[in-house]
Amino acid sequence: MNAFDFLTPQRNPKNGTGITMMLDKGIGPVSLIDILEISGRYVDLAKFGWGTSAIHNREMIKEKVEIYRSYEINPYPGGTLFEIAYIQNKFDEFLDEADKLGFGAVEISDGTIEISPEERADIISIVKERGFLTITEVGKKDPEKDHLLTANDRLELVNQDLKSGADLVLMEAREGGKGIGLFDDQGAVKEDKLKILSEGADIEKIIWEAPQKNQQAYFILKFGANVNLGNIPPDEITALETMRLGLRGDTLGKVNLG
Amino acid sequence: MNAFDFLTPQRNPKNGTGITMMLDKGIGPVSLIDILEISGRYVDLAKFGWGTSAIHNREMIKEKVEIYRSYEINPYPGGTLFEIAYIQNKFDEFLDEADKLGFGAVEISDGTIEISPEERADIISIVKERGFLTITEVGKKDPEKDHLLTANDRLELVNQDLKSGADLVLMEAREGGKGIGLFDDQGAVKEDKLKILSEGADIEKIIWEAPQKNQQAYFILKFGANVNLGNIPPDEITALETMRLGLRGDTLGKVNLG
Amino acid sequence: MNAFDFLTPQRNPKNGTGITMMLDKGIGPVSLIDILEISGRYVDLAKFGWGTSAIHNREMIKEKVEIYRSYEINPYPGGTLFEIAYIQNKFDEFLDEADKLGFGAVEISDGTIEISPEERADIISIVKERGFLTITEVGKKDPEKDHLLTANDRLELVNQDLKSGADLVLMEAREGGKGIGLFDDQGAVKEDKLKILSEGADIEKIIWEAPQKNQQAYFILKFGANVNLGNIPPDEITALETMRLGLRGDTLGKVNLG
Repeated sequence: MNAFDFLTPQRNPKNGTGITMMLDKGIGPVSLIDILEISGRYVDLAKFGWGTSAIHNREMIKEKVEIYRSYEINPYPGGTLFEIAYIQNKFDEFLDEADKLGFGAVEISDGTIEISPEERADIISIVKERGFLTITEVGKKDPEKDHLLTANDRLELVNQDLKSGADLVLMEAREGGKGIGLFDDQGAVKEDKLKILSEGADIEKIIWEAPQKNQQAYFILKFGANVNLGNIPPDEITALETMRLGLRGDTLGKVNLG
Repeated sequence: MNAFDFLTPQRNPKNGTGITMMLDKGIGPVSLIDILEISGRYVDLAKFGWGTSAIHNREMIKEKVEIYRSYEINPYPGGTLFEIAYIQNKFDEFLDEADKLGFGAVEISDGTIEISPEERADIISIVKERGFLTITEVGKKDPEKDHLLTANDRLELVNQDLKSGADLVLMEAREGGKGIGLFDDQGAVKEDKLKILSEGADIEKIIWEAPQKNQQAYFILKFGANVNLGNIPPDEITALETMRLGLRGDTLGKVNLG
Repeated sequence: MNAFDFLTPQRNPKNGTGITMMLDKGIGPVSLIDILEISGRYVDLAKFGWGTSAIHNREMIKEKVEIYRSYEINPYPGGTLFEIAYIQNKFDEFLDEADKLGFGAVEISDGTIEISPEERADIISIVKERGFLTITEVGKKDPEKDHLLTANDRLELVNQDLKSGADLVLMEAREGGKGIGLFDDQGAVKEDKLKILSEGADIEKIIWEAPQKNQQAYFILKFGANVNLGNIPPDEITALETMRLGLRGDTLGKVNLG
């Protein structure tokens, strides 16, 4: 039972909507257990950011993966690691290792490399067949290349990926959330671009990377408490959940608890 | 005994001035003990920010409250939670629950809601009678509404709250400290407004929310080592204390140790 | 063995180049062990920032020093503490205490005070003779004073310090990395100044303080994976190492692994 439970609305996390994806950029196991013990029930997915899992000891990664799973959180390696494997022609070994380490999801991205639409569809099928939760990402890491993608390009990629079998699609915003994807250089949402995406795709399948508080508040106010949000730092899990529930000034009395 | 104790001045924390109020936005108990073990003697008050305490398990909140108390730190739930209780006509239940959980202070704010001056005075009296350290907050969460409050409005509220029996008054700056209260969009202090407040009120009763380093340095240089400061992140407690004592470049040789 | 080890290049940390210096601003011992257990092999030096070690218990400092040493990390007190000792004519006591506490390096700086070139050379000799790894710092804490130092002034200081026996020279950037040293107000590198330094001095002996991600990426792309970088926050150690190895979008396929 929560403290002050008579004051607050309830949300039903871990039911497939209102997804919170946490960004793990190398937290130690003791700190991880500590933060999940207090707020882990509000997290659905944990991304081991970019190539971070490749510089840690295998036993350490396995231990962290097990910690996540014990809190019903699905952990997965960052898309950049997939890209590195792909350009080295080691995609199969990558999937084998992800499986052995216990990861339950795989992210397919082309943030730094180029992949043809046909190959992308094939990769999605293979990941899906291997039994991983299949997440794709739309967007480029380099802001100059990313700016060349129109909102309609992004929309097409989202719908194509879902058609190819992806379970979820991430909208790229990196760790910083500025000057990338749907965000301008100050981190504000480009509303016209968002409109094209939200009207043209199934937004229950999109996870919006939104590392900054104002971005999280924006999406919650626009799409309701159960919008899917990603790249949340571990120490912001609690703050995000309070915003979803209208327990912070930014959303108090204004959020659709749907 | 401190390391290098022959080099450094002494300050006498926990004597009612030079208050440091830490902002707890959902830290786990292991990390909390760890940070307080090294720097807890420099903390007087701990605010469980906004509604965060309402989404954590009651036993977890009780455990954290006890941890704080074991380091002689007075913990309290955020003003936003009071506001939510107030608009739901559950003010009494709120105080009962705060008491049961072990909180030793209560914050009364109107950051998001409206409360008449008479009601505000009544609420202060009730909280005081219940034996809580009584803290009020001056300022609005929404920058647009907050900008409508003049420095004289704020001064009047401070003095009225103290007259009504408040022990301390917080000057709102939120977690970010930009474009709110006494801070401009870059986080710099609006000196003319501060002057009105500091000259018209008993500043030993004011806690300046100052989440950013430059803001903390400003207040320390202006009012001395024993100025009351709030919304300090847990991992900045040590840094703040060094600035109070002139042990950091920003204040070295320039601080009034009073 | 690392996870995904078949994908990633190797680097040989702790061999005297590619130094990573972490900034410790008061982390507790449990969190410290936790972060070093997962990423400590990528850290060479740990600075107890400015005067922070002087407000913590001696036993706590000794415990942390031992923790660092057990991960083959050389810990040292911040330059500001040296400066405070120096102006109080307690330089010898300072070195004695640093030795008793177990610190293996000493930083000599004049960020806030003035020291003549002759005295500076003498101090370097004394620290060196006492058996400490001898690190000097070039730059002023106050941006206005720091701006008076030309690139050639800095170059001369670097070469003089090395000639006097310093093992390493830090280029000041403070905790923030903006409007100080080689960085402009946005934190971008002033390339013309950097050119003078990098062409005129032995850059294997320089540690560039680079607290921000973009700064770290810049130095890695310019000087290769084994550039020496400092003022790295504990929770960025892993991220930095991935950038050194081209495992993050910012440096993927573009870094000289030397």
